[in-house]
Amino acid sequence: MSITGKLLINGEWVTGQSGTYQAVNPASGAKLEPILSKASSAQVDAAVAAAAACAAEFRRCSLAKRAEFLRACATEIMALGDELVQRAIAETGLPQGRIEGERGRTCFQLNMFADVVEAGDFLDVRIDTALPDRQPLPRPDLRYMNQAIGPVVVFGASNFPLAFSVAGGDTASAFAAGCPVLVKGHSSHPGTSELMAQAIDKAIKQTGLPAGVFSLLMGAGREVGSALVVAPEVKAVGFTGSFSGGMTLVKLANDRPEPIPVFTEMGSQNPVILLPKKLASEAEQVAEGFVTSLNMGVGQFCTNPGLVLGIAGPELDRFIKAAEECLAKQPAGVMLNQGIQEAYNEGVATISSQPGVTCNAVGESHQGKTGFCGQPTLLTVSASDFIANTALTEEMFGPASLLVTCKDLAELEAVVTSLKGQLTGTIQTAPGEMSEYPELIDLLNTRVGRLLVNGYPTGVEVCHAMVHGGPFPAASDVRFTSVGSAAIYRFLRPICLQNYPPELFPEPLQNSNPLNIWRLVNGSRTRDAI
Amino acid sequence: MSITGKLLINGEWVTGQSGTYQAVNPASGAKLEPILSKASSAQVDAAVAAAAACAAEFRRCSLAKRAEFLRACATEIMALGDELVQRAIAETGLPQGRIEGERGRTCFQLNMFADVVEAGDFLDVRIDTALPDRQPLPRPDLRYMNQAIGPVVVFGASNFPLAFSVAGGDTASAFAAGCPVLVKGHSSHPGTSELMAQAIDKAIKQTGLPAGVFSLLMGAGREVGSALVVAPEVKAVGFTGSFSGGMTLVKLANDRPEPIPVFTEMGSQNPVILLPKKLASEAEQVAEGFVTSLNMGVGQFCTNPGLVLGIAGPELDRFIKAAEECLAKQPAGVMLNQGIQEAYNEGVATISSQPGVTCNAVGESHQGKTGFCGQPTLLTVSASDFIANTALTEEMFGPASLLVTCKDLAELEAVVTSLKGQLTGTIQTAPGEMSEYPELIDLLNTRVGRLLVNGYPTGVEVCHAMVHGGPFPAASDVRFTSVGSAAIYRFLRPICLQNYPPELFPEPLQNSNPLNIWRLVNGSRTRDAI
Repeated sequence: MSITGKLLINGEWVTGQSGTYQAVNPASGAKLEPILSKASSAQVDAAVAAAAACAAEFRRCSLAKRAEFLRACATEIMALGDELVQRAIAETGLPQGRIEGERGRTCFQLNMFADVVEAGDFLDVRIDTALPDRQPLPRPDLRYMNQAIGPVVVFGASNFPLAFSVAGGDTASAFAAGCPVLVKGHSSHPGTSELMAQAIDKAIKQTGLPAGVFSLLMGAGREVGSALVVAPEVKAVGFTGSFSGGMTLVKLANDRPEPIPVFTEMGSQNPVILLPKKLASEAEQVAEGFVTSLNMGVGQFCTNPGLVLGIAGPELDRFIKAAEECLAKQPAGVMLNQGIQEAYNEGVATISSQPGVTCNAVGESHQGKTGFCGQPTLLTVSASDFIANTALTEEMFGPASLLVTCKDLAELEAVVTSLKGQLTGTIQTAPGEMSEYPELIDLLNTRVGRLLVNGYPTGVEVCHAMVHGGPFPAASDVRFTSVGSAAIYRFLRPICLQNYPPELFPEPLQNSNPLNIWRLVNGSRTRDAI
Repeated sequence: MSITGKLLINGEWVTGQSGTYQAVNPASGAKLEPILSKASSAQVDAAVAAAAACAAEFRRCSLAKRAEFLRACATEIMALGDELVQRAIAETGLPQGRIEGERGRTCFQLNMFADVVEAGDFLDVRIDTALPDRQPLPRPDLRYMNQAIGPVVVFGASNFPLAFSVAGGDTASAFAAGCPVLVKGHSSHPGTSELMAQAIDKAIKQTGLPAGVFSLLMGAGREVGSALVVAPEVKAVGFTGSFSGGMTLVKLANDRPEPIPVFTEMGSQNPVILLPKKLASEAEQVAEGFVTSLNMGVGQFCTNPGLVLGIAGPELDRFIKAAEECLAKQPAGVMLNQGIQEAYNEGVATISSQPGVTCNAVGESHQGKTGFCGQPTLLTVSASDFIANTALTEEMFGPASLLVTCKDLAELEAVVTSLKGQLTGTIQTAPGEMSEYPELIDLLNTRVGRLLVNGYPTGVEVCHAMVHGGPFPAASDVRFTSVGSAAIYRFLRPICLQNYPPELFPEPLQNSNPLNIWRLVNGSRTRDAI
């Protein structure tokens, strides 16, 4: 089945009733076939109703079936073969190696969540057995477990057309939690979105799950997304994208008669701190690693190193010189779409025009190249100008970074203190050097979700220990990650069953522990039966 | 040290600079000595600054020290002796047995959190070790743990002057998480609040923690509380009380430049569903249990059974008759304060005046009694009138309950469908009967935080498996409980350390696992060293 331009609603492929559009190839500006369709509000309502109707069944479905479904999604994505890869390249301008790598990551993620589901730790089962003879009052039997929060709306992100989109981390973690998912596909890669939905559709049918477990709704503009977020049956939202887009959703969700959690990952500047001894020994290598990280994927990562902090001196001068030289040789790559290119150019122009900001270097020109290209850029500013001007804390989404030169450690600490919440913070340190800066590290710690040493933040590993989130405004909720196995926590909520009939216990709470999961029984961590 | 009327700010007892007031004995209406003082905004700022200044130190302090501190709080509360008990009785009208029981619960809770801290499960440590040879890219060492979210504001609740107040569950769980706490004491029991703060102050000094770890700020009206919630250094808020009070705080927190999580537990109607076979066999016993639960503590529990649902028929008639008889003998008890008494009377009057609502029975009159008494009340209404009128979903905080008579199961399910989120839902069922109602149970499940069988919801056990929370508007965040060991999750957020120098790892992340805690190492649950 190739791309049809249809929507998937409750297991049926239907033509959207709110007009048509076409995808655009950002490398050429050309429109891509076929004609695609947008969802009407009645179609949004139908998808929401289908999700709500099957929410209890999917919540109760066995962990084994949920894992089987997740693995089937991965298998069916691979079975899409080269059509998926070519369409994703055409819609995003990303190179084949990146798309194939991202496909691998997406499938790995689905399989990881299948393992997470089977392990059952995410249920956080706690059992306090009855104490009928306790004085002055007996204790009833109390059993706690996490269960699915209900239907979840997922917004596809433009910059990861596979791994943060239709079948990406938000969808995988919501499925793993037992939540039906309604995806608002990103209009920057709609054909890719449809193909991924075809794979999920097949996986649903193969595993015999109810069709309402997944719907794909497309639509340019904000109507479809807004309608999904305000639907009373929807219980949570996952989003990766811009601050303004994310906060629009947060506000919509907060203003509902029943407010719901919204998990928006809204990007950040991702400060990289250059400690002096590190620069003294390897300023050039650090500069080269930084520039490579900066221009990777044309800088279109939430974790792009958009801010560099160093203490003025000959070591920092060496770093700057090496970075300038390396940057000048960087190509201007094709950005994801025209809107992102325009926002990037505007962002760089705005930051460049602030008091005290100078442009140190740019990469190769994109003049003469076709497509929506972004030119790598390195700007510098003094710490005092940076601290005085909150405009300089705005992210430039793309291959641009702002280097802040500090007179001394006190000024460096003041810069870190002035920062908003960040997804990541990086320390470039010589061996043993970092321990000389405990207060600086503490300041950075409280402002980031991930604190990394002698690397660059652009690699976000899908694993148990990842945190991709952070203090506001990097994310709307500092308590959760959107990448890694802990992302499942976003779509769960605890329930306690008190004095419940044993014959009605769900499997995770049964005395015999048929799933062999770790549980907290009367305060002790165990896999034993009760 | 007896009651001074002072505030505790950064380890110093100071007179509030924003006027004076006195506590009132609700059993007599008389003012209590001594004169008390209210915090000024400068004093609020000083307390917040002290909390922020020591947040990093307290976050990093060893688990052993944190546990020692929690246990010292419990010891010092017991050392307050009878002065605490007598003052709490005088300020709340609650009987001595209840106050002593609540003191026991409060100390038990502090000691439980000490155990939780030592066990270390709350850290959710996840370690994915480096894979330097992985293709196509190596994996860095990644280590994840929960850490304190930062300074927390706790609002004392009127109805649990010890267990949900100055040193109650919110404070205990925030301390356990490693967060400094700023308490806005409830002006309904200010002397009790001061005594409890004296105990915490002693515990801080004994264990050598920084003084900013705890402050007590008093003030009538909303100024002090609002100033605390909007302070930039504050990172989370815990509140138990009314819907309007809770939502005021939620809105304040959402409107901050940096929004922060607010955990408000705002009460609910706590529906009790009477299944027919249960009533056929023991309608009178169920009625007696219900009425006892309803009037316990003059009905001043968030989990009071304020709504009863049954299917019309001779069994339900028997229940109503027995409940009426039992209720008529119930005394009118002293309520916590004049405001609560007035709100109760108004609430009952409002519900009573709705179309189709009749008053079946009232308890003994409070005419002639001194103090702010509340008269037990049982109202009834038909399911159709209930569903048609959202005014009937308002909680009456006090000893009143609304019985909804349904024609049949379909109507009972429609009533449950119409309910807002609830802290609890209760099923009264004969053996085996509940399994005949899977859809009804599913409907109830998605609307409650705790689902209990053949009991009454008023007993909230402090244990690992408790959920005291639920879907909005029972609580502002369905993902968390405010009672039980899982309450600690509210005040934590994850951080990931990537490629971090081993010599700088906090203890929970060290390879040798010196704390002997359970960790997820490369996907396996273990206590082994790495």
